[in-house]
Amino acid sequence: MNYKKLGKILGKIMVLEGFLMLAPLVVSLIYKESITNVLAFAIPILALCGIGMVLQVPKPSRENLYQKEGFALVAIVWIVMTLFGAIPFVINGDIPNYIDACFEIMSGFTTTGSSVIEHVDKVSHSTLFWRSFSHWIGGMGILVFVLIFIPESNEGSSMHLLRAESPGPQVGKIVSKMKVTTRILYLIYLGMTILEVIILMFDKPIAGYESEQFFFSLLATFGCAGTGGFGFIPGSMELFHPFSQYVMSIFLILFGCNFSLYYLILIGKVKEVLKSEEFRAYFLIIGLAVALVFISLVSKVWQVQQEYTTEEAFRHSLFQVASLMTTAGYTTTDYHVWPALGTATLILVMFIGAMAGSTAGGIKVSRIVIAIKGAYVNVRKLINPRYVPKVKFEGKTLEEKTINDVFAYITLYFFLFLVALLLLSFDPINGTKVVINSDAGKYSVEHGFFSNFSAVLTCISNVGPAFEAVGPYACFASYSGFSKIVLTFTMLLGRLEILPVLILFNSKTWKRV
Amino acid sequence: MNYKKLGKILGKIMVLEGFLMLAPLVVSLIYKESITNVLAFAIPILALCGIGMVLQVPKPSRENLYQKEGFALVAIVWIVMTLFGAIPFVINGDIPNYIDACFEIMSGFTTTGSSVIEHVDKVSHSTLFWRSFSHWIGGMGILVFVLIFIPESNEGSSMHLLRAESPGPQVGKIVSKMKVTTRILYLIYLGMTILEVIILMFDKPIAGYESEQFFFSLLATFGCAGTGGFGFIPGSMELFHPFSQYVMSIFLILFGCNFSLYYLILIGKVKEVLKSEEFRAYFLIIGLAVALVFISLVSKVWQVQQEYTTEEAFRHSLFQVASLMTTAGYTTTDYHVWPALGTATLILVMFIGAMAGSTAGGIKVSRIVIAIKGAYVNVRKLINPRYVPKVKFEGKTLEEKTINDVFAYITLYFFLFLVALLLLSFDPINGTKVVINSDAGKYSVEHGFFSNFSAVLTCISNVGPAFEAVGPYACFASYSGFSKIVLTFTMLLGRLEILPVLILFNSKTWKRV
Repeated sequence: MNYKKLGKILGKIMVLEGFLMLAPLVVSLIYKESITNVLAFAIPILALCGIGMVLQVPKPSRENLYQKEGFALVAIVWIVMTLFGAIPFVINGDIPNYIDACFEIMSGFTTTGSSVIEHVDKVSHSTLFWRSFSHWIGGMGILVFVLIFIPESNEGSSMHLLRAESPGPQVGKIVSKMKVTTRILYLIYLGMTILEVIILMFDKPIAGYESEQFFFSLLATFGCAGTGGFGFIPGSMELFHPFSQYVMSIFLILFGCNFSLYYLILIGKVKEVLKSEEFRAYFLIIGLAVALVFISLVSKVWQVQQEYTTEEAFRHSLFQVASLMTTAGYTTTDYHVWPALGTATLILVMFIGAMAGSTAGGIKVSRIVIAIKGAYVNVRKLINPRYVPKVKFEGKTLEEKTINDVFAYITLYFFLFLVALLLLSFDPINGTKVVINSDAGKYSVEHGFFSNFSAVLTCISNVGPAFEAVGPYACFASYSGFSKIVLTFTMLLGRLEILPVLILFNSKTWKRV
Repeated sequence: MNYKKLGKILGKIMVLEGFLMLAPLVVSLIYKESITNVLAFAIPILALCGIGMVLQVPKPSRENLYQKEGFALVAIVWIVMTLFGAIPFVINGDIPNYIDACFEIMSGFTTTGSSVIEHVDKVSHSTLFWRSFSHWIGGMGILVFVLIFIPESNEGSSMHLLRAESPGPQVGKIVSKMKVTTRILYLIYLGMTILEVIILMFDKPIAGYESEQFFFSLLATFGCAGTGGFGFIPGSMELFHPFSQYVMSIFLILFGCNFSLYYLILIGKVKEVLKSEEFRAYFLIIGLAVALVFISLVSKVWQVQQEYTTEEAFRHSLFQVASLMTTAGYTTTDYHVWPALGTATLILVMFIGAMAGSTAGGIKVSRIVIAIKGAYVNVRKLINPRYVPKVKFEGKTLEEKTINDVFAYITLYFFLFLVALLLLSFDPINGTKVVINSDAGKYSVEHGFFSNFSAVLTCISNVGPAFEAVGPYACFASYSGFSKIVLTFTMLLGRLEILPVLILFNSKTWKRV
């Protein structure tokens, strides 16, 4: 392990985090918050910059990074970012418990959006801003950001870092001129963000929150762009007008697309985009899911606890599918009380997630497609043992290694899922009653299997809200500290796609080379 | 597809099923049941023998079977066995609906034990016998049975059939003298069955069922041996005395072992058995699971709806872990109301299942061990891309193909799981209330996500009882016909380990060769 080089990159990133924290500090000043609120950001900024600069002092004897170092570094960076990013919440008192604060900001950076804050209308503007801004930062990746702005002579090292941080299986790599491409992708990200803020500003302000329209549009957009989904007014997006809800649905679906596709559009290769199998599968799944949820809400076959007009039923179906499949996790209504067909569909899209190379979590559409093709290959091999697979994906013959990697990933995903589920069941919260007060009325649920199951799912897929006792109108505050640590790690596993985190636990990783 | 040869083997098996049905017919005569009950078995026996003999008439032009034919045949055989095996229940009126009857007997053959019969004390002895006997037949496999008794000149063909039917990954194949070995394994199976019946007869009879002791001991043993678990008195094994419950726990664990291990013991290679990694992992998991469940029941950390003495808590922990991990599914108490730690542990062992080469279902311990070793290999490859895996399993270097097959299997397992879960959510039963009357008292549960989730789990792992509305004191009768068909297929997928069923849906399978 090249510790000095690691320290150097980590140091750079810590300084960067310090700079990024200036934004909430400015928000704090704009809203004339108390001196504690300002110090809450000023202190970690100083700490980050100080430590970050010290870490950059030793000269590494080797400039390049091996693959394992790249992967381990990514995991370390995310953990350090979280440990420091949580400090403001503790100092300004919005989340006094440090474990809770770490949960919250990890949820932010990993673009999960699960929250421990019970009353978002009682915390400071700077806290709300920092949480939602962390979605925007984490969406495209922290290291990606650094690699663009800070010169890194060694392209190979950068490649390892990018591979470890970017979601999805490695099928079509954008290797050449990586830095240029990455910069363009970030510009697209920025452009779409600005566009969404502007469009949201066209809506009429929310009654009672007239002065906050720009602030809310900004935060809502941060959550859409990073597919995070922290709420900032009671009821998540329930109070937003239908216009904004439709706009957000569309932007969520757009931010769930592989950003390389936008690059292809920019250089005029629209046909290639339309030919992309993952792109087609993504829209097919969205279409099917919206249809199933919509049918479950308007059909009279199942008992419905909530009555919607047809327009409302369509809007909520579209919004919730877009929000949960892209793993943002914004909500417009209490989907927990929907008929089983609706909830099962939502659970399925939470597992699937959006496209690889987007800001979303989940298993990813491309992995699902590859796994299905892999299953077909296995059946064909059984029929004819001499069968040489020539199955194609995205125009290229699918290598067996790719299929095997996908199978391995999905297996690990479910294994870690079950382990986390077992660990959560130790929590004394299990079996207690929780009162939910949602747009479907006031009702009581038990904190049971479905709560834990969906909590793990929402964290490993980086979605945000879950079901039952941690449903759209509840929060994660009631979990024990141990459970929160488990869920915090689950979010990290989901965001970094398992291996970069697992590599930390192998002693061979830490050997000096 | 060699249709004539297929027909020939299928014909033989149909005749065999006819013969096996003589047993419940005799039971019917012994208990002096009505003529309808006797005819309920006589009619399908005649049909099976008649059709079975006709199918054997055409002379196949080719004697051997290709791999795909072997696999497809196994799936076809199981479906045909089910379609005919269900007939008695419809004729004698114990299960008037044919879909329900197919569900019941598929549950029997696949050694699942999920039932649609609400009151087992109201059905005939012959019905009870046939259901439980089907566990015993299905446990070791139907084709295995045939291959022993009916000469099959071509060893290669037999191999394909055995491979398709026997559970677990193919690590150490028993290729040489296969027929001899299989015969010995069946003798061990028979011997252990007789031993358990004898030991159970030593217990004092159950109050109110004094005259039934032998009958009950026999049925209980059928369920243990095949790890099936159909109940035959109200409350499954609740009324059985602690002695019998302990005896059954031990036998369940023994029937969950790979039968090759008994063969090794017989030929004096006890040391090799103790060295078996799967064997060790199996007992380690059982030990851990019993400990976790026991702690959840005696600790005061979690709310407990049922008060047990320490002995009771231990006995129920041991019995339920043994029963659900070996995927038998007998129950001694209402485990659905246990604290989350207990239920989560049970759900985990239901996923895992027992050893490969046993009569049990689930993913199988060996696959879990291989997958974990596979994950380690993947991490090591990330650390050192030139790493050549030399990981061992059961004394042999684990081939990458084996690891990949396991990953593929587990991925498919979870995918099909989720598909079945989605299909069940269409059922109008969802959202309705179900009243449960168990040893924990009378309470009402909603037929919700956990019901469907656990129903799919219990069927794909061939366990039997589930949770919530299909828990240990409920039955599957309330599901719609469509849901029952889905679950029936899920049981078959679980028992035949997916690929033999999937192969039926590929057009290439049906091509004439």
